[in-house]
Amino acid sequence: MILVYDTAVERNPKVLKTCRKYLHWTQRSVFQGELSTAQFRALMAALKTTIDPDYDSIVTYAARSPDMIESSTLGVDLGGPGDIL
Amino acid sequence: MILVYDTAVERNPKVLKTCRKYLHWTQRSVFQGELSTAQFRALMAALKTTIDPDYDSIVTYAARSPDMIESSTLGVDLGGPGDIL
Repeated sequence: MILVYDTAVERNPKVLKTCRKYLHWTQRSVFQGELSTAQFRALMAALKTTIDPDYDSIVTYAARSPDMIESSTLGVDLGGPGDIL
Repeated sequence: MILVYDTAVERNPKVLKTCRKYLHWTQRSVFQGELSTAQFRALMAALKTTIDPDYDSIVTYAARSPDMIESSTLGVDLGGPGDIL
């Protein structure tokens, strides 16, 4: 799945820390990884307590299989799932 | 496809304008839409002339079929493809 966060600057470090527990960081505001349903729920629950739902936004995209998604990067590439973060 | 941009503030308006020609805006830094291969190439070519490849980053994710992707939003929802932007 892909997760894109758009949160206020003061909440970014906490959101980053939470997302990093479950996913790989692929771009300044994008995470990627494979999660079970239970992991996904745990991540969403953790983020819910972190964000301000009236200001922040977190969008996730999940595909039935990771092979079904092709990704490409223009400009700076912060590294794919293979990187240790 | 999903497009996430992370560009320097001074280039954001131009990147936004270019992306809006082809895609729907779904979050502060995220666009979504269905593009033909020709449209995708045209968008990438336009963005290439706009961004600084040493600083900016644009990541795209394409699925074989839009039905294969499920999206969900936590917090502010800027509106899906149905919105007029």
